[in-house]
Order: sequence, then C-alpha cells, then structure tokens
Amino acid sequence: MQMSPTQSCRLHTPDDYVFVSNNDENDDYPSQIRNQCQSNDDNQFRRDHRLLSPCQCEVDTKNCSVEFGPFLHQTNSDSHQTGGVAADYSDENAWPDGVARESLHGVPQDLDSENDINEKERWLMTYFAVFDGHAGTGAALMAVNLLHHIIQRHLCDVREELMRREAVTGDPHRKSSWQCEPMVDLPSPYRDRSASIDVDSLVIGALETAFKEMDETIGRERTTYQIQGGCTALVAIVFNGKLYVANAGDSRAIINLKGKVIPMSEDFTPLHEQRRLQTLAYLKPELLHNEFCHLQFPKRVTQTDVGRSMLYRDADMTGWSVKTITEDDTKFPLVYGEGKRARLMATIGVTRGFGDHDLTVYDTSIRIKPFLIPLPQVKVYDLTAESHEPNDVLILGSDGLWDVMTNSQAQETVLQTLLQLDDSDQLRYMSAAFQLVLAARGIRQDEMWQLKDGSQASNDDITAFVVPLCACVRLSPSPRNDLTVSDNS
Amino acid sequence: MQMSPTQSCRLHTPDDYVFVSNNDENDDYPSQIRNQCQSNDDNQFRRDHRLLSPCQCEVDTKNCSVEFGPFLHQTNSDSHQTGGVAADYSDENAWPDGVARESLHGVPQDLDSENDINEKERWLMTYFAVFDGHAGTGAALMAVNLLHHIIQRHLCDVREELMRREAVTGDPHRKSSWQCEPMVDLPSPYRDRSASIDVDSLVIGALETAFKEMDETIGRERTTYQIQGGCTALVAIVFNGKLYVANAGDSRAIINLKGKVIPMSEDFTPLHEQRRLQTLAYLKPELLHNEFCHLQFPKRVTQTDVGRSMLYRDADMTGWSVKTITEDDTKFPLVYGEGKRARLMATIGVTRGFGDHDLTVYDTSIRIKPFLIPLPQVKVYDLTAESHEPNDVLILGSDGLWDVMTNSQAQETVLQTLLQLDDSDQLRYMSAAFQLVLAARGIRQDEMWQLKDGSQASNDDITAFVVPLCACVRLSPSPRNDLTVSDNS
Repeated sequence: MQMSPTQSCRLHTPDDYVFVSNNDENDDYPSQIRNQCQSNDDNQFRRDHRLLSPCQCEVDTKNCSVEFGPFLHQTNSDSHQTGGVAADYSDENAWPDGVARESLHGVPQDLDSENDINEKERWLMTYFAVFDGHAGTGAALMAVNLLHHIIQRHLCDVREELMRREAVTGDPHRKSSWQCEPMVDLPSPYRDRSASIDVDSLVIGALETAFKEMDETIGRERTTYQIQGGCTALVAIVFNGKLYVANAGDSRAIINLKGKVIPMSEDFTPLHEQRRLQTLAYLKPELLHNEFCHLQFPKRVTQTDVGRSMLYRDADMTGWSVKTITEDDTKFPLVYGEGKRARLMATIGVTRGFGDHDLTVYDTSIRIKPFLIPLPQVKVYDLTAESHEPNDVLILGSDGLWDVMTNSQAQETVLQTLLQLDDSDQLRYMSAAFQLVLAARGIRQDEMWQLKDGSQASNDDITAFVVPLCACVRLSPSPRNDLTVSDNS
Repeated sequence: MQMSPTQSCRLHTPDDYVFVSNNDENDDYPSQIRNQCQSNDDNQFRRDHRLLSPCQCEVDTKNCSVEFGPFLHQTNSDSHQTGGVAADYSDENAWPDGVARESLHGVPQDLDSENDINEKERWLMTYFAVFDGHAGTGAALMAVNLLHHIIQRHLCDVREELMRREAVTGDPHRKSSWQCEPMVDLPSPYRDRSASIDVDSLVIGALETAFKEMDETIGRERTTYQIQGGCTALVAIVFNGKLYVANAGDSRAIINLKGKVIPMSEDFTPLHEQRRLQTLAYLKPELLHNEFCHLQFPKRVTQTDVGRSMLYRDADMTGWSVKTITEDDTKFPLVYGEGKRARLMATIGVTRGFGDHDLTVYDTSIRIKPFLIPLPQVKVYDLTAESHEPNDVLILGSDGLWDVMTNSQAQETVLQTLLQLDDSDQLRYMSAAFQLVLAARGIRQDEMWQLKDGSQASNDDITAFVVPLCACVRLSPSPRNDLTVSDNS
C-alpha cells in the first residue's frame, strides 16, 4: 500500500486532564457549579461517608469548545474513581511522535474549503471515559493517563484500512484517487478478503486491542509503579460520524433519543457473565484448585443434598436439567450471591476491567485474573441515522449512579433539568449531570441518606457524564454527511 | 415432593419407524406418491449419482392420524441419511418400563370430560427428526432408534418440576391441588429458587442433555456395534402447546406463518461457529498439536507474509485489528475455506452432531471430537400465540435441500403445492414435501441435473418434512388454551 508523506492522519485525542476540586478557586471552573458543589449537604455527605479527599470534578477546561462545555460531575470521590472528558482541539503537538504525522494515500491535497474542514474533522476522535477503581487508585489513574493514547495508536494502526474504506464508501471524487492494488488472479484462498471488513469492525478491533494492551501495561508495570487494585472502564468515542461505546465493567451508558432510552452497554457482573465464567472453569478446571464448583444450582448445595435430585445448569446449557447431587457439587459455587451482591469466587463483584493482576481468593493462591478480563463489549450508534435535538444526549455513569437509579429514572432526571434551561445555556449539560449525582446521592433525613422515595441513597462513588449528541455530530462529520453536501453543491 | 401412584405421566413418543422404499409394494404407502417416486427421472437420478439403495421414504404408516398423514419424503438416499416421523398414539406399551407409569402429584383424578382429554394430551410429546449421516450409517441409525426415548426420559426426569409449574401457571382449579412446600425461613442463599426456572428452560434442558447422552451412548457402544461415522441431528417436538426445535448440525427448520418465514434453526458450520472453535483452541492450544493456527486472517497466510502487517481476529474479538505476521501464523488455519466448502481443521464441514468419536485429521492423531459437539441450539415457537391456517407449516430439511434453495424458495415451493390442493386432501403436506425434494433434485437436461433456473441441482441427500401447525396445536393443547376453555364454561 503506497503512502504519501504530505497529509496528516487526523485521528485525534486530548492528552490533558485538569482535575478541579470543589475547594479549588480555579477561575476556569463555573462558579455556579462550584457553589453547588460546596453546599453543606455535600460537606456533610463527605463526612458521613468518611471520604478523605474533596469532591472532585475533572474537566478538560483548557480546550473545551462551547458545545462540549463541562458536562461531567463526580462527587464523593475517595480518589478511587476518575473520569476524563475530551473535546476537539487541534494542537498537533498533542500527537505522539511518529504517529500524528503519519500520512495517508488518497486524501485530497488542499483542505481549505468548507468541505475540507469536514475532511479534517472526520478523523478526529473525541473521547470520554469513566474508570471506577477499587482496592487502590493505581489502575484507574494509569488508565486515565494512557488509554486514550493507546486507542489513538491502535486506530492509527488501521488508518490505511480506514482510509481505503473511506475511499470506497465516501465521496466519489475521492474514490478515483484511491489506488487499488491490481487484481491478481490468485487462487481463491490466497485472495485478500480484508476489503469485506467494514469500518465498524476496524474501530471495534482497535478498542478491543487497546483495552487488552492497557491491561497488559498495568500488569507489566505494576511492580515498578506500585500499582494496586483495579478499575472498570467505560469509554465512549466519537469517530467518523459514529459513537462507539466500549465497556468493561459495571459502569453504564445510555442514550436518550427523543424520549426513548437506548442502552449502550451491558453490566459485566458475575451473574451477567455466568456462562463465560462457567465455560472457562469447565475447560480449565485446574484454575479452580478443586475449591469451587462450576455448575449452577437454584440454591446453595449442602451436605444434606448429597444423593438427592436437583436442577442444575452446566456451562454449555441454555436450559436446566436434573442431576443427583454428589460431594463435588457441595463445593463453593463459582458465582455466588444475588444481584449486586453476587461475587466471582467469593471475591469480586465485577468481571471485566483493568488491573487486579495479584488478586487471589482470600487465604488461597487461586488467581482471579484469568476470569476477570479487560475485553470490552463495543456498541455502535450511528450519529447520522437520526436528526438530533438539543435534549438528545449520551449519559455515562458509574455503578454508584445505577445502583439506585433505573435507566428511565436517569433519563427523566436529565430531561427535567434540560427542559428548565435554555438551549444556549452553556452549563445545561453539566447541570443535568450534576442533578444526576445529586439525585443518586440523595438527601440527609433522620441521620440517613435517602432518595426522594425514602429508599436508601447510593453509598458508592458517583460519576455522571451528559453529552449532547448534536455536538457529537458537529464534531465528527461522517462520509455520508459529506456526500450529501457534495450532492447539494 | 410427594407423588401419587394413580396418574400416568403422559409424555409420549413413538417407537416404530416403517421404512418404505419406492419399490416396495407396501399397501400402506399411498400409490399416488409411490408412482411419483418410481418415475424414470428418479431411476436415472439414482444411476447418475451411483446410489446403491433405492429411493426411500420413511413414514410412520402404522399410527399416523389424519392430520399427521405422511408428510415426509426423502430421495436419493445412500442409507447415510435417515429420518423419522411420529404422531400421537396412545399405546401405553410404547413406554419404556418404569417410565410410562410414573405419576404426578396434583393432577385431577378423573379425566373423562372434554377438558380432561386436553389434560391427557397436554403431556404428549410429538416428535420429528432428520439425521443426516456421513462416513457410515451407524450414528444416524442409532439416533433414529434411540433419541426419542432419551428425550422422553429426560422430560420425565423433570416431570415434577413441569407439573409444579403447570399448577402455578395453568388452571386455577388445579392450583389449589398443588401442595407447595411450606416456606421455611432459611437464609437467602439456601432458599430454593427453582420456581423461577420456567417450563421452556426445563424442556430446553431436557433436549440438551438428551443430545449429549445420545452422543455419549454412540461413543460408548461404537466398538460393540461397529458404529462408524457421524450424523447431524435436527429434532422438532410439539409439547405443552409449544414447538421446540433442537438443532445440532447443518439441517434447517423454518416456519411459514401467513406467508412470512420464521427461521427455527441456525446452520452449525465451521464459519458459523468460528468464534466457539477459536475460543476452544485458544484456551486449550494442546488440542491443535502445533499444527493449526487459531487466529483468523482475511487470506491464507504464506511465508512471504512473515514480517508484514495484516488484519487478524483473535478468539475473543468482535472486531479486527492489525498484527505483524510471524512463523506461527503461517500454520494451517483452524477454519479454512469459503461457504459450504469451509472445513474444521481441513476435515469436516459441520461442527455439531453425533458420533465421529474416532475421527482425526488425515494422517495425524489430532482429534476432531473436542471441537465437534452434540449440543443443540433450541428455538421455541409458541403455538398458542397465533391462530394458524392450514398452510402455516413447519418445514424441516437436510442440507441437500438448503444447498440449492433459500428459505423463501422453499416456502414458495410448499405454498404453491398447498394452494393447489384442497384443505381436506390427506396427501397435501406429503405432496408439498415431495415437491421440495423434486425441486432440489432438479431435472435432467443435457446430461446434467439442473434446477429450474439452469443452475446445478443438489448432489446431496435430500430430506424434507412439511408439518401443519394447526395439527400441532390440536395435538398439544396448552395450559393457556385450557384456561380459556375453563373461563368460558
């Protein structure tokens, strides 16, 4: 594949995160929100929950455009949870050496007209992430600082393939400038079928391999940098006219589209991943050290059940069948507990994420890591398939939010806030995120933190993003948008 | 759970198969169809395809009810492919000793009224199966003779659970007669949650474990009975108001519902199962004996690719990424070939089924069996959710049919035949099945067997069933149907 050295590959990520605490007198941080953060309730909440560090907001205050004004809020952080928000900025120095100026063959040479600005922006990547840490801050902080660079690099690795598809599916004028390899009459198996692999598969692959590399990096450097614990990872990138949400853990993303909720992630908990965990244990029983049972039963099997019939489900089954209970079945279950309290090998309540390389079952040498994987599930939302109103938003939140709030309740909370504020209000999305956090944190009544309905409020870290989809569309014009412009001109 | 000894558990299967060849002068076999089978074209087809045995039809001619008159046809069998068809008959001697008279607690004692006939029929199982054999007839014949008994036994194993759910979801009069175990105040994990497992999960589990047992039986007895080769298995059972289709292999089932096609199975081929095969090879690389590569590439990797970048997909990935090719990547691919010609380890084109316990990669000791599994995928169709017209049918077919026919073409062929025949015609479904086989076999032109459009006709065994759904509904009244009757009375 030929390459010309004159054009920049404009995959783009931020590399700055400004951490703003409530107590900071940082002028960049809107006083309206700052005052909200400093309410007595917040201070009391931190005391009640024995949080050592101040309530934190992390926003990219340096380079945010108006549309991507601050729309993240995080409260009651004990520094185990970090988030990042990125917007489009075009400082080429932000690119790692040797990557930013990688060039692509087939892109038009002059990029001065209005269409060409679209062409520049098409390959920008806008990035949001929530990393919910546990047992230490190391893994989360490392992910905050590195993951977007790693994703960027993996996208750059497939830039030739991306541009090639762009040439095929995008502007017909560009198509002609794409030099296809001559069709050689090779025997069928040796013919390259990579052209049938679409852009989505390449972006999903880049996210998957980036997550795996992030985890390997933490594993490799954990001794040198004394990285303890682990973290979940929820990443949303806007790229080439689409929104890609990659999730490894129990944070969650949803979209509000014209009042309808579109789930953009699944919660990777031991119960949700029971099948995958059971399959691994079934194929590699040595991982269980003869201490756990990989079969699923409708109750905790005890010695008194031995010899009796009981329903069970094996790793490869969708349905349930009956077996006679043996001594082996009385071992502790691989997955045990209900709902949010379910644990993998009685140890951890989340089954995907970064770090935890040294985590073992209490008082044993049984490693958790083979079961706990960094691989994300990626969902794709086409920003060009619908027209978006100012209240159509992506909501990202840590499990501290979703523990006490359904998707619909979060959507309702956001919409209530947005409807009260003018579309031009630069703080409307941040206010909505803030209201999400306030609602999940609850109010203090009778020495208890309660939700509006009187039930117990969240006792966990809470992070929320509210991202307007119309701004995503503006930031990332797609080939199809471009094509429409071309057709109209 | 208490049991009363007075009521029969009326799970029901046939145990007779009458094999009728075209040349047989069997009076039970309709002469109209027999004459069709004996056409010159058929005789020529058998000569052209070097088939040693005559064209065969296998129907249960002894016990079919009118609705389930013969609706199976099979042509050009070389005895490697067998099918079975079952209808409702109530010869209690057909039950294996010790199973047929197992009784259930909570069923009303007198079953004489019209509703009670429904109650009797509710627990009948009606069964259809296609077994497409390869490399010998043993596995297919053993499955023909045993599988329905094994399924029956596994359904009987969960009969208490089935009746218990029936009592909860069915007729309210019956509910009172169901003796629930007293709610003991046990700690939460020790409380039995089996009540939350629904009837579908129990039937699916019975089918799954029955398929596994069938394969184990073949494996265990293959030396004693000189069972060679293997077979795919497509089974449809009508039970408790629903149609359950269990598929392990590349036969296929579809439903025609008011002109719409509903796929009732997936074809389990190496390409379709790439992910599962890769995962097994990734987790247990020793199974590949260092001879195969589990990674997926868009082309056959050769020595000249070593050191170059190429797209690839690992077992756990949904997308595609890039890697630098190494010597290891040049090993033969685990899955190789296109479409129907794709093979697992260059050996077999189907990835689920029975038998093949001794199958190895040519000239090696690498076993195919760990990758080739008997587990079926089960799809459920609720016969009570829709009203069914006489032309709404289930179509089952071996890959010999689907190789040359799309789902829509099969549906069209069946509907064309059915529309020409009166609803009361006892041969209409058999005629439709026969037309399917004729269409796939094609006609002889210019020394070639061709389809209507001139393309090549099927060169494989062809089996087709056409089963009217309205007859299924009549055979298997559901709890809900019953409830409606009760409400109206």
